Amino acid sequence: MLHFDSDYMEGAHPEILKRLSEINFHKYSGYGTDAICESAREKIRGACGCPEATIHFLVGGTQTNATVIRGLLRPFQGVLAPDSGHISLHEAGAVEAGGHKVIAIGNRDGKLYAGDVREYLLGFYGDENHPHMVKPGMVYISHPTEYGTLYTRQELEELSKVCREYKIPLYLDGARLSYALAAKGTDVTLKVIAENCDVFYIGGTKTGAMMGEAVVFPRFVPEDFFTIVKQSGALMAKGWMLGVQFDVLFTEGLYLECGKNGIKTAGMLREGLRNMGYSFYIDSPTNQLFVVLENRKMEELKEEVSFSFWEALDKSHTVVRFATSWATQEDEVEKLLSFL
Amino acid sequence: MLHFDSDYMEGAHPEILKRLSEINFHKYSGYGTDAICESAREKIRGACGCPEATIHFLVGGTQTNATVIRGLLRPFQGVLAPDSGHISLHEAGAVEAGGHKVIAIGNRDGKLYAGDVREYLLGFYGDENHPHMVKPGMVYISHPTEYGTLYTRQELEELSKVCREYKIPLYLDGARLSYALAAKGTDVTLKVIAENCDVFYIGGTKTGAMMGEAVVFPRFVPEDFFTIVKQSGALMAKGWMLGVQFDVLFTEGLYLECGKNGIKTAGMLREGLRNMGYSFYIDSPTNQLFVVLENRKMEELKEEVSFSFWEALDKSHTVVRFATSWATQEDEVEKLLSFL
Amino acid sequence: MLHFDSDYMEGAHPEILKRLSEINFHKYSGYGTDAICESAREKIRGACGCPEATIHFLVGGTQTNATVIRGLLRPFQGVLAPDSGHISLHEAGAVEAGGHKVIAIGNRDGKLYAGDVREYLLGFYGDENHPHMVKPGMVYISHPTEYGTLYTRQELEELSKVCREYKIPLYLDGARLSYALAAKGTDVTLKVIAENCDVFYIGGTKTGAMMGEAVVFPRFVPEDFFTIVKQSGALMAKGWMLGVQFDVLFTEGLYLECGKNGIKTAGMLREGLRNMGYSFYIDSPTNQLFVVLENRKMEELKEEVSFSFWEALDKSHTVVRFATSWATQEDEVEKLLSFL
Amino acid sequence: MLHFDSDYMEGAHPEILKRLSEINFHKYSGYGTDAICESAREKIRGACGCPEATIHFLVGGTQTNATVIRGLLRPFQGVLAPDSGHISLHEAGAVEAGGHKVIAIGNRDGKLYAGDVREYLLGFYGDENHPHMVKPGMVYISHPTEYGTLYTRQELEELSKVCREYKIPLYLDGARLSYALAAKGTDVTLKVIAENCDVFYIGGTKTGAMMGEAVVFPRFVPEDFFTIVKQSGALMAKGWMLGVQFDVLFTEGLYLECGKNGIKTAGMLREGLRNMGYSFYIDSPTNQLFVVLENRKMEELKEEVSFSFWEALDKSHTVVRFATSWATQEDEVEKLLSFL
Repeated sequence: MLHFDSDYMEGAHPEILKRLSEINFHKYSGYGTDAICESAREKIRGACGCPEATIHFLVGGTQTNATVIRGLLRPFQGVLAPDSGHISLHEAGAVEAGGHKVIAIGNRDGKLYAGDVREYLLGFYGDENHPHMVKPGMVYISHPTEYGTLYTRQELEELSKVCREYKIPLYLDGARLSYALAAKGTDVTLKVIAENCDVFYIGGTKTGAMMGEAVVFPRFVPEDFFTIVKQSGALMAKGWMLGVQFDVLFTEGLYLECGKNGIKTAGMLREGLRNMGYSFYIDSPTNQLFVVLENRKMEELKEEVSFSFWEALDKSHTVVRFATSWATQEDEVEKLLSFL
Repeated sequence: MLHFDSDYMEGAHPEILKRLSEINFHKYSGYGTDAICESAREKIRGACGCPEATIHFLVGGTQTNATVIRGLLRPFQGVLAPDSGHISLHEAGAVEAGGHKVIAIGNRDGKLYAGDVREYLLGFYGDENHPHMVKPGMVYISHPTEYGTLYTRQELEELSKVCREYKIPLYLDGARLSYALAAKGTDVTLKVIAENCDVFYIGGTKTGAMMGEAVVFPRFVPEDFFTIVKQSGALMAKGWMLGVQFDVLFTEGLYLECGKNGIKTAGMLREGLRNMGYSFYIDSPTNQLFVVLENRKMEELKEEVSFSFWEALDKSHTVVRFATSWATQEDEVEKLLSFL
Repeated sequence: MLHFDSDYMEGAHPEILKRLSEINFHKYSGYGTDAICESAREKIRGACGCPEATIHFLVGGTQTNATVIRGLLRPFQGVLAPDSGHISLHEAGAVEAGGHKVIAIGNRDGKLYAGDVREYLLGFYGDENHPHMVKPGMVYISHPTEYGTLYTRQELEELSKVCREYKIPLYLDGARLSYALAAKGTDVTLKVIAENCDVFYIGGTKTGAMMGEAVVFPRFVPEDFFTIVKQSGALMAKGWMLGVQFDVLFTEGLYLECGKNGIKTAGMLREGLRNMGYSFYIDSPTNQLFVVLENRKMEELKEEVSFSFWEALDKSHTVVRFATSWATQEDEVEKLLSFL
Repeated sequence: MLHFDSDYMEGAHPEILKRLSEINFHKYSGYGTDAICESAREKIRGACGCPEATIHFLVGGTQTNATVIRGLLRPFQGVLAPDSGHISLHEAGAVEAGGHKVIAIGNRDGKLYAGDVREYLLGFYGDENHPHMVKPGMVYISHPTEYGTLYTRQELEELSKVCREYKIPLYLDGARLSYALAAKGTDVTLKVIAENCDVFYIGGTKTGAMMGEAVVFPRFVPEDFFTIVKQSGALMAKGWMLGVQFDVLFTEGLYLECGKNGIKTAGMLREGLRNMGYSFYIDSPTNQLFVVLENRKMEELKEEVSFSFWEALDKSHTVVRFATSWATQEDEVEKLLSFL
């Protein structure tokens, strides 16, 4: 059976396992106060060009989103997000459980545009009833988006501009950030993100780590954020288990290398599918491909390959998702193509 | 200055004030445990044809919605509501502050249709990722809606049917219920509501009471709902202050009479506007009229009348709302028409 | 049947009913934006000697406590309160429902002492694990306390001093404030309270109002507190219904007069009981008396008088509470004494 | 430098690292739906003698406590816990952040006794005001306690009995469960726990795992608990990372072996200290020793050993904690003793 279901199906990059073995019986202080975490933070600060950044290591994506949002918002505030955003749809109400509304704005190709944010904010403050409404307190985007699409540097700058104008932080969910950074033609680097966002996270789970997301506050950090992390159940006792993974991933560019493998194998798959005449539901430059299959073909394929159902397109066609990852092998792609 | 801003601009029906004076120095037990509350409950049970109903008196609408929803939902559940619903837009995130997502469904004329609810539920349970999503745990509607429109009996029955099929309660927000009950041609009575809804509230604030909303559970009541009410800050110490108002309103049909005055005066205004060639943004059969005004006309009118801005229609026209109430006088309507 | 159960058993002071009737058909703007509320605010500012104060009118005590605490605390903070405090025991978890821990400190005669607060804070900051603990974010006291006891001016000043040292607000719950202000020998006035507390509320429900509590922020107000009030379900549509009651109560010293009646009748009762040899569980100078009764006597009394059970003292004695109020008549006290 | 600070200072048992390496490139389905998790669950079911148990793998202790409590309680309920319990003191308000009060009951040697629970419940239901109070909805204990002490089988049975009488679940926090199971003379086995508790967790983080806690519901599981886990940010994408650790720990009794090492090395240390005349603050039969040191001695020791400050005993003595673990070596204990 071939597996193209998602990018979190394998364990960890072998370098991480090796390092874990080496340090296994060293004794570290808990809760991220150890030297390995500090080393990882310093490398991330370097990669992001923000030497003053505060960095926390959390375990997973939903947890990170819920914790960051709780840490930044006041009770009367909500978070603006594209209606296709992960926090809008697939986090089981974690943001609302923290007391905050996700204010969904229509997406275009999975993205939130500065113009739409501005229009919402103008409408909000122009409505004399706005003190009876949830106040927009931050903007959430994901990069790549849930459709695998990417913001351009200019789009990020425009979002940043409107956020600064209204004094609300811009938060970027980088669950799959390595695949964004490694995509062809992108002008969005870690430094660009750090310049334009007030907080973002660098996803480890989907890029070579067993688990772990590095939250970066380039310029400021919310008051007592450590306690917020603890209260949110997001503080690992053996914090260095997260730190060591990021320390390895940010040594000699491994994080980017992991991303490149996902991009390269997705590229092979994309080209193969195009050559065979398949059409794409959306044009994704990263490691998730959204392909239209005839239902009969899809059923046949299921016997050999596991992949994700995305949505029914019409009575006889379905959109499915194939995801590559940091660990996908070229021969797996070739085999998949041979079944199509 | 004339006032057509809203239906909660006057105090209380004189019968209520009279009764309050009469009982003022009688001593009652607190928290709604007194005989007047019980008398009011019994009259409401009679009017609704549900002798087993449990009834609680709360103070205001947002409070009532938040309390009922907290009492009925489990933490992993959200409430389906039209995207124009009061809980979706104008309650400052009170539902989310209680930990629950408002799942907004597209409205038609302010209404939520059974077909759209069913489609959402089918989509939800058809999505294999649904355990990662907020589970629909109840359906919220308002009657009249925020646009002054009304459900038909058949529409309510269809909503009730889909809710029962999926075993989720149907909740009706009756902030302006008197105006729905008194509207011409409606086939929705209190009994129809009690048959089809699992919980609803009868609004007092906008119909002759100083404040107060009567929450009716026709058949079951959530466990320890009294404590939920207390915890939600919605339990009045002098509960009989609410009870006595509903006792008066449900004596000799006064509640319906109040509604009829709103309908009658709105009808005069509607007809007058039509005769003068004004057009309506939406066809509302109740006490709120949504009228299109030229901006110049609107500015002139503001000097004599206060009313609500609704939305800009185009560069030179605005939709405004005129609301009548249980207390509106015919000569006020005539005067308003004379300014138009 | 005589009633000495509580101080919220009668309706409203006749002056309030009179005023309500006079303004009944005047049209006011909603949500506390009207001229009567502003007049009441101005009178309260005068009485408190704080011309810059921000004042909101809320409906009830639990609601007010929950709303003020949510408005002031950040998610990682809790509120220090005496373990006998209303928020510690009798608000059904309203503070916790808002996400905050009530950190209970041992009381002495219902009071919280500055020394105990300081000791807690020293212990907290001296504990290296404190980032894993709930951070003390405000101090809550009630005046009179739940045992009817009173702080002295010096005690308030000491509490204020420790709060300012640690930069946490001091909040005073004045549900029965009139009885504190009217008590004999007290040196705590509204001005003293306003000088020493960062927020407090003046209770109306237990002093001549149908309902209503006036929240006073003498010097600062939390950001977007109006929206917090709305979200907490504590914003009355007909806000002037609250405003008018405080406007009457703060005209010609009526609030203090109401308190004096409670104090005077409690004084008669206290003296009568003493003369008859009854002993008191606690020495309360306000309108609640905690009296030790033989169980047989208590059972007899129940046939003529309703009062509150407080706690079992030993096998044959019980502590009961008799409460007088703004409305208690001298002949009621005489009659009660005749039964004892 | 010697380290006796805590039992979560080393990585993972070498068998776990070995197994992780072996399966690293195998592709598993996400969120705990894989075969390794199922294998681990089956082994735990066997060890606990409860073949019908539902088992979820979560990441850390605070997270687990907050998630289980949110899953079991209704909004009007709180959790009874000893005032020394982890949820009472050291979880930064995670339970309150979920909306629930921790109702602290006085502990004796860190333990909660059935008699005290019954007394609280009797008092609660005997108080006519209890609908205004937080309803006790579950009982939380930890085993070993925060003081390293242990319940006897009879004590657990008595707690279970009172809980069943009042129909509230009994929850056991087993963060350090291995050290309880391995303690000398204990009659509390996993089967005894499963018989008497309605939910408990088997701690991995402090016993040989990198992270991970196995939540066991022996007989029932709260509705949609998976979604509660997701919403609480406690669902790991690569769920098998947790499953594999428990699969190894529950193979050939490794979990108990790990516990035994902690007990054996603590025993050596305890005996050594006794022989040298040191006194203990509390008599702990598990892997945490609470020792009284002269302050001068303590300062000297700090240069060679890291350990935990517990509390100041008097002006010249301090209670400190030494913790051994699954990984402590005998020569480390000998070295520590040589410094004392």
